Amino acid sequence: MAGKFVCLADFENFARESLDTNASNYYNSGANNEQTLRDNVDAFRSYRLRPRFLRDVSRRDTTTTVLGELLDFPVALAPTAMQRMAHPDGEVASAKAAASMNTGMILSSWATSTIEEVAEAAPRGLRWFQLYVYKDRQVTRNLVERAEKAGYKAIFLTIDTPILGKRLEDTRNKFKLPAHLRLANFSEGDVRSSRVQSDSDSGLAAYVASLIDPSLSWEHVDWLRSVTKLPIILKGVLTAEVAREAVEHGVDGILVSNHGARQLDGVPATIDALREVASAVNGQVEVYLDGGVRTGTDVLKALALGARCVFVGRPVLWGLAYKGQEGVQEMLQMLKEEFSLSMALSGCSRVSAITPALVVHESYYQSSLGHASTKQQSKL
Amino acid sequence: MAGKFVCLADFENFARESLDTNASNYYNSGANNEQTLRDNVDAFRSYRLRPRFLRDVSRRDTTTTVLGELLDFPVALAPTAMQRMAHPDGEVASAKAAASMNTGMILSSWATSTIEEVAEAAPRGLRWFQLYVYKDRQVTRNLVERAEKAGYKAIFLTIDTPILGKRLEDTRNKFKLPAHLRLANFSEGDVRSSRVQSDSDSGLAAYVASLIDPSLSWEHVDWLRSVTKLPIILKGVLTAEVAREAVEHGVDGILVSNHGARQLDGVPATIDALREVASAVNGQVEVYLDGGVRTGTDVLKALALGARCVFVGRPVLWGLAYKGQEGVQEMLQMLKEEFSLSMALSGCSRVSAITPALVVHESYYQSSLGHASTKQQSKL
Amino acid sequence: MAGKFVCLADFENFARESLDTNASNYYNSGANNEQTLRDNVDAFRSYRLRPRFLRDVSRRDTTTTVLGELLDFPVALAPTAMQRMAHPDGEVASAKAAASMNTGMILSSWATSTIEEVAEAAPRGLRWFQLYVYKDRQVTRNLVERAEKAGYKAIFLTIDTPILGKRLEDTRNKFKLPAHLRLANFSEGDVRSSRVQSDSDSGLAAYVASLIDPSLSWEHVDWLRSVTKLPIILKGVLTAEVAREAVEHGVDGILVSNHGARQLDGVPATIDALREVASAVNGQVEVYLDGGVRTGTDVLKALALGARCVFVGRPVLWGLAYKGQEGVQEMLQMLKEEFSLSMALSGCSRVSAITPALVVHESYYQSSLGHASTKQQSKL
Amino acid sequence: MAGKFVCLADFENFARESLDTNASNYYNSGANNEQTLRDNVDAFRSYRLRPRFLRDVSRRDTTTTVLGELLDFPVALAPTAMQRMAHPDGEVASAKAAASMNTGMILSSWATSTIEEVAEAAPRGLRWFQLYVYKDRQVTRNLVERAEKAGYKAIFLTIDTPILGKRLEDTRNKFKLPAHLRLANFSEGDVRSSRVQSDSDSGLAAYVASLIDPSLSWEHVDWLRSVTKLPIILKGVLTAEVAREAVEHGVDGILVSNHGARQLDGVPATIDALREVASAVNGQVEVYLDGGVRTGTDVLKALALGARCVFVGRPVLWGLAYKGQEGVQEMLQMLKEEFSLSMALSGCSRVSAITPALVVHESYYQSSLGHASTKQQSKL
Ligand SMILES: Cc1cc2nc3c(=O)[nH]c(=O)nc-3n(C[C@H](O)[C@H](O)[C@H](O)COP(=O)(O)O)c2cc1C
Ligand SMILES: Cc1cc2nc3c(=O)[nH]c(=O)nc-3n(C[C@H](O)[C@H](O)[C@H](O)COP(=O)(O)O)c2cc1C
Ligand SMILES: Cc1cc2nc3c(=O)[nH]c(=O)nc-3n(C[C@H](O)[C@H](O)[C@H](O)COP(=O)(O)O)c2cc1C
Ligand SMILES: Cc1cc2nc3c(=O)[nH]c(=O)nc-3n(C[C@H](O)[C@H](O)[C@H](O)COP(=O)(O)O)c2cc1C
Repeated sequence: MAGKFVCLADFENFARESLDTNASNYYNSGANNEQTLRDNVDAFRSYRLRPRFLRDVSRRDTTTTVLGELLDFPVALAPTAMQRMAHPDGEVASAKAAASMNTGMILSSWATSTIEEVAEAAPRGLRWFQLYVYKDRQVTRNLVERAEKAGYKAIFLTIDTPILGKRLEDTRNKFKLPAHLRLANFSEGDVRSSRVQSDSDSGLAAYVASLIDPSLSWEHVDWLRSVTKLPIILKGVLTAEVAREAVEHGVDGILVSNHGARQLDGVPATIDALREVASAVNGQVEVYLDGGVRTGTDVLKALALGARCVFVGRPVLWGLAYKGQEGVQEMLQMLKEEFSLSMALSGCSRVSAITPALVVHESYYQSSLGHASTKQQSKL
Repeated sequence: MAGKFVCLADFENFARESLDTNASNYYNSGANNEQTLRDNVDAFRSYRLRPRFLRDVSRRDTTTTVLGELLDFPVALAPTAMQRMAHPDGEVASAKAAASMNTGMILSSWATSTIEEVAEAAPRGLRWFQLYVYKDRQVTRNLVERAEKAGYKAIFLTIDTPILGKRLEDTRNKFKLPAHLRLANFSEGDVRSSRVQSDSDSGLAAYVASLIDPSLSWEHVDWLRSVTKLPIILKGVLTAEVAREAVEHGVDGILVSNHGARQLDGVPATIDALREVASAVNGQVEVYLDGGVRTGTDVLKALALGARCVFVGRPVLWGLAYKGQEGVQEMLQMLKEEFSLSMALSGCSRVSAITPALVVHESYYQSSLGHASTKQQSKL
Repeated sequence: MAGKFVCLADFENFARESLDTNASNYYNSGANNEQTLRDNVDAFRSYRLRPRFLRDVSRRDTTTTVLGELLDFPVALAPTAMQRMAHPDGEVASAKAAASMNTGMILSSWATSTIEEVAEAAPRGLRWFQLYVYKDRQVTRNLVERAEKAGYKAIFLTIDTPILGKRLEDTRNKFKLPAHLRLANFSEGDVRSSRVQSDSDSGLAAYVASLIDPSLSWEHVDWLRSVTKLPIILKGVLTAEVAREAVEHGVDGILVSNHGARQLDGVPATIDALREVASAVNGQVEVYLDGGVRTGTDVLKALALGARCVFVGRPVLWGLAYKGQEGVQEMLQMLKEEFSLSMALSGCSRVSAITPALVVHESYYQSSLGHASTKQQSKL
Repeated sequence: MAGKFVCLADFENFARESLDTNASNYYNSGANNEQTLRDNVDAFRSYRLRPRFLRDVSRRDTTTTVLGELLDFPVALAPTAMQRMAHPDGEVASAKAAASMNTGMILSSWATSTIEEVAEAAPRGLRWFQLYVYKDRQVTRNLVERAEKAGYKAIFLTIDTPILGKRLEDTRNKFKLPAHLRLANFSEGDVRSSRVQSDSDSGLAAYVASLIDPSLSWEHVDWLRSVTKLPIILKGVLTAEVAREAVEHGVDGILVSNHGARQLDGVPATIDALREVASAVNGQVEVYLDGGVRTGTDVLKALALGARCVFVGRPVLWGLAYKGQEGVQEMLQMLKEEFSLSMALSGCSRVSAITPALVVHESYYQSSLGHASTKQQSKL
């Protein structure tokens, strides 16, 4: 690939070629047959934009807020584990990139940089913390308290991982965190918590089976509520049913996500799930989305269908692999420009103008609505 | 393929490469254009899972019962003929594998091991007998009586094979049972019944045309009822109509099956047919499914849509071809683990928690349900 | 391809390899983008069979009647022009093959054998005559009278060809009838009518433009009625509208056909059009189908959806190219056996048992009929 | 490709092979993932024709009118920028070709020939002018006045381009107008307006960002109304909402277009959008379509679904690349003949006979309308 990158696929191709198999497969693969992995991206293509032309779009305000915090544009960083496999600076680079672009970043529990390091690297950056619930409640509580203390603005509680999903390549590769890296939020001496490796299986699958609490339930949500003042967002909601339960349990936000299609293969694409979740929540809490966002129109569609902000996972890793902080910035810049352009071309000068009327499912055009001859023939 | 197998496709690929054409084609092919063969597998992909998160899934009980008999998990062995082509131990190996995994096995009428051999090989294993009705009623009755005597727990009467389906490759190959093997349930001297070969056609097609009763009808079901005390399950039901007739005729169970897509090409995928059969039966008898089950989520979907247990056909042959009994065990172990994982990731700690609400057809997400903008536009 | 043929595709492949480009393209191509050509075959795959098991199918009666004439099975020969390009015996071989299989044949106006030759070749065979209306009414009348005199049992009036469709390859090849052949129903001296060639275009397109009446209308149907006592069947009906007009004009039968997708690209597949035509006709006249019939289940589906008999076009040419009369017989024998088998496997012992209940469109299984969880969720 | 061209794809293939990358990519590419680009062509395939046979079609009148002006057939030339990259004669050749075929041509604001040159080249030809609104209103007004003076019959105001869409290849290539060419409607000395190039981006994207008015709104439409007596047609309408606004603002016509899929990827195919626009407009103003028209049946379908005339964009460029004026004429001649043929084969002798009853969406045949067995089963 000569010359500058023109779309996110350019970052992806670069990363796939430059990373080693262990890391590349871990980053890119999805669960089992990867049906949902493909679907996350493809499902965006099944929504059609209905542009409103002839609105003055000379100035577009792409800003949004997440729980009251301002973002320059509605794309932030999803939590992905072990970013130092992609670039020596890992999460520190991502945090700096997010801050420099005036957007936010969710730090993974399984970062290869500490909660504090990341906070210091981008002190004025907007940061949230993604929480995995360890069997040992004290470990869990410790993570939350450190995040709170270090100025993280919310806890994203991942609800889809009582056990790790089955990712075929990671099992084949016996995926492991390279020897020079650690899950940095756990003390180096604590080998069980800070190292990821296994002789017989994906090292991460073994890690989760050994340390993460498979009994995760609404009781943990309530407990979390009791130990922190930070807003709590549930990450992983895919149905109206769970969304309604979440609202009843008093959470502050919902992130529609299927964990990048890495947990249960066969769940809906997130953009498909978004519609019913947004409709069930009905504005009572904020709704976000991650999964398969790759272009500016993907962002536009997600906002039209009810998301306040979207998050990108793999694209951050591709950006890191390409050029560290700068690579992540370039990737974000590209999405920002594409999003702004898509606003212009659909007649929106503010994100609040991005309403459901801007999007229909492709089946709308396959239906017989307004199709004179069908109506006529159906009288046959 | 270096290293251990991580999915059933690994077993399949191994078997396709190692078996000779005569056996491999016989095992893997379907009728005519193999449309239903592809559909059996693909149709599972058209159902979406709707996980219920935040249920305690630390302990999952995967057990089910089939006519009151306990199985460690809801995957048992479908009857497939002539297993000794895949491995010298054939049905004996399969029976041992099933028993060691605490699940059941249906022995084919056309086994290359006798009813009694298989019973002795796995005396405490759960076994059922699959019955083909021979023109000679006495032959048929003899099979049933031997099965009953040898402790088989039910008769699965195959209803979709009054004549053999047309499998192109077997016709081309003039498929035959290798000279050193016999359909073991018939005396070696009885060449017509125990050998499978033909000069001009698939040997099995010729066998069926010569010996199997093409007049098979409800009268035979009633007759079977009169000659055995064993429960009778109809294998091959694909429509609500036949399911209702079956219930009226007092059968004890229904196996939704299209014979692995080997009889009538163009019938529905079994997972598609299951919905209407389960709905028509409405709990009056137990309903099972076979056809295209290849992953843990396939099992989960079948249970959600009304099956009490599923059966696998070709995967058993692939396991045998790989490593005999051990290969079948590994295959079953993989499905068991995947099924257990899929229960965990969808919020089910018991099979009774696997209800219809867990699954929707993908068309649900293509519809305009809850889609605000479509509603709006449809007023145009 | 070693060994005997096992499906119609084997005949097709043989013919494609053995015929020269001029003939092979003429025989196999469809109009323009060949969308309807593919669709004719593919659309059959979109109907699902719903077998009724446990009916005595030991004896199957495959006979049907067409306007009172008995056929051994419901597959007859569609009219295709210029069969001697495929085999020296051409239409004579086809007629003998049809007669020996106790089925019927429609002879094309553009045969390379005369009406009388064909009648003599198979004197007891069931024959019909396909009519193109020439600008010169006397020429047209002459064809009809000769057919009547030679014992043809009906006139199939082709209504879809006021002008020839655009077949790209024939235009490229400047398709011509080889010099040693003639459209035999026209006197050898009459070069314009008996030869097919052009310097600038498909020879047949030029032929039609020059000689065939583009003003073809209902008036011609009435005229035809006035000049012959033979039953008149309209060949080419694709909509309920035209079918109803045909019934009003007193025709004796309707052949649902799109001319093997050679006229107007973009019309429906014939199996799709059949449903509405049969429903509009409602039993007032007999309905037949041609287009894309390649397997026994295709025949079964067409009969279930309302056809009394189907016709095959290209398969006859493939059979001829393979082995002349014998090749056509083998092809017909294959379809007969496949049809009989499909009757057996779907529980039909007579063609009158082949009712609409035997078939549904695949969308039936995609719908939410009887799908509990969808019903539940649609209340959201 | 030996021999004469038989379909528009032959022109396309020739052009792709003979043009350089800079021009070929500019001409052929669409925005972003080119989803809409593919969709524009493919969506035509999803409509089925319902021919009315047995109408006298010996004489077909293919003429139509656009705002009262007569065209020999309902296919005219869409405005495409910079045609001299395809052939030295550029827009002059196109205009002559259109005139010689008695159809019309829309000249682009960004032509490489002047408004006046083109008028002189084909003085009796029917010409319209496509307008981009420059930030400098005087520049814009000047273009309109020159067009009016030079006898152009209407202004097509392009409403979908407040900013240029993102075309990946043009960005990669840093697309530029070759040094020997100019946007001819701007004085050679005015380098900013007449040259297209950039060091860092698509030259055209930079041009638009610098000079074209991104605040384009209904106010500009009203302004345009005030400065010209020419009819105003909005080019780029894709929804019923905008169509209704257009009618309220008193425009004279609507061109359903998505700019050849070059602006916002993910908008509907134009043939899909046409249905709802035509239905919303309900005959109050004339409706036209461009995008993906490649065959005579495409034209037929567009007319049946509500267009009075269609326009072709890329095919003109392919024709130019092939043989200049003669190439464009051959291309138009091919579409004219195909359209006339498709009228003949669908039973239409005048364009007014091309009504909605002639076309249905393919989903019509997938539905259960008139399908007896489905009705029956749905009672289950
Ligand atoms: C390599 C990788 C690691 C991830 N690690 C975590 C994690 O530690 N915690 C978490 O909640 N989600 C994790 N996710 C899921 C992401 O937060 C996010 O849901 C997903 O990547 C979004 O989809 P996308 O990659 O298509 O943008 C991970 C995803 C990937 C690809
Ligand atoms: C090689 C082979 C042999 C089979 N033999 C029998 C048999 O003897 N009796 C029977 O009822 N079904 C037989 N079947 C059908 C299976 O019982 C079962 O319905 C089918 O294999 C399930 O589909 P699956 O192979 O996709 O799992 C056979 C299937 C295969 C593939
Ligand atoms: C090579 C060829 C020649 C044909 N010639 C005629 C003809 O002379 N008259 C006619 O009515 N139909 C003609 N047809 C159409 C056939 O009668 C029939 O409608 C069609 O072939 C059926 O489709 P199938 O080829 O898929 O079976 C011809 C078709 C082909 C393929
Ligand atoms: C190379 C190219 C240049 C174009 N330039 C213009 C233009 O200057 N003004 C405009 O309104 N549309 C322009 N268009 C859009 C066309 O007018 C038209 O909408 C489109 O090409 C129709 O689609 P088709 O190319 O599939 O026929 C351009 C399209 C192409 C392909």
